[in-house]
Amino acid sequence: MHSVLINHIQKFVSLEPSEVTLLESSLNLSQIKKKEHVLQEGQVCNAMYFIIKGCFRQYIINNKGTEQTLQFGIESWWITDYLSFHNTTQSHFYIQAVENSDIIAIDKIVLESLLIQIPKLERYFRIVSQKTFGAAQMRIKFLFTMSAEERYNHFKNQNPEFVQRVPQYMLASYLDFSAEFMSKIRAGKV
Amino acid sequence: MHSVLINHIQKFVSLEPSEVTLLESSLNLSQIKKKEHVLQEGQVCNAMYFIIKGCFRQYIINNKGTEQTLQFGIESWWITDYLSFHNTTQSHFYIQAVENSDIIAIDKIVLESLLIQIPKLERYFRIVSQKTFGAAQMRIKFLFTMSAEERYNHFKNQNPEFVQRVPQYMLASYLDFSAEFMSKIRAGKV
Repeated sequence: MHSVLINHIQKFVSLEPSEVTLLESSLNLSQIKKKEHVLQEGQVCNAMYFIIKGCFRQYIINNKGTEQTLQFGIESWWITDYLSFHNTTQSHFYIQAVENSDIIAIDKIVLESLLIQIPKLERYFRIVSQKTFGAAQMRIKFLFTMSAEERYNHFKNQNPEFVQRVPQYMLASYLDFSAEFMSKIRAGKV
Repeated sequence: MHSVLINHIQKFVSLEPSEVTLLESSLNLSQIKKKEHVLQEGQVCNAMYFIIKGCFRQYIINNKGTEQTLQFGIESWWITDYLSFHNTTQSHFYIQAVENSDIIAIDKIVLESLLIQIPKLERYFRIVSQKTFGAAQMRIKFLFTMSAEERYNHFKNQNPEFVQRVPQYMLASYLDFSAEFMSKIRAGKV
């Protein structure tokens, strides 16, 4: 199961066999049940989560008291609250399993030790987090420049399987649909 | 002038004197006039920009044809389009000087060479970009959870000087104000 992460790392940096062995012995797989949280608002985020199998989402409770999904993560994605992680401050976010999932949770202290022993991992995490940030910036652009129908169709075209995997109400909040547009989708009119 | 960047790097990693010398000889300072762009939509983003003095913003043209500011950067901030930078794809964003500014623009090829010669810079850029990403996530949370007045007051409290530095219409789009609330601010009613 570690091979999914090792392979992902090797897309960005080359690991020596001894480094692969070190990673395999340092990392633990966790099974997280659907709807279980790995982070809740108010907690300090002390880990980064790599998704081996399944799906997670990062969400907030908005000012209407409803859940607003800001990010999804599926296989081979990292998910965490970077600000809470780096500043050791209380998180403003929830991170929850959308499906029964297998993840590798790397604790901050373990990560720091791995980064010292395998400095090239700095490069891996730099590139991966910069690309994730870039993707998040694109999502914001889509929210401001596309109509709800365009956002839905664009997302469906880019992630055809994913649209089937998550509850529609989560997708609706992620793509910031109005209740009206959501009804159209539910009625199969889009 | 390079010392601002060197000092910023040294907040995260320790540099040897030879590494400081290498950085000083590799980096060039550019003066960018107010309203000048370092990146326009459709161009490939080939550099990262560190602001020594002045202010930049990243913006898009929204579906009403108006400029929507997504991010500001001031002294000791990095600004770039990470997705375009990493994937060598056309950018969807504009990056523009809001004031006459001094920046260090690091070209992708120069950066790659510096990262090979000073691998600990990987750590610096990892932490800085993860923190920037974390701050961007917080901005999204504020957009969804605070009223326009709360967002304005929160931003003003956190950045009292900054509110005076940028045109109100840029701040309004960054904080996603309605025209109505903008008029209240203009009339001094907030």
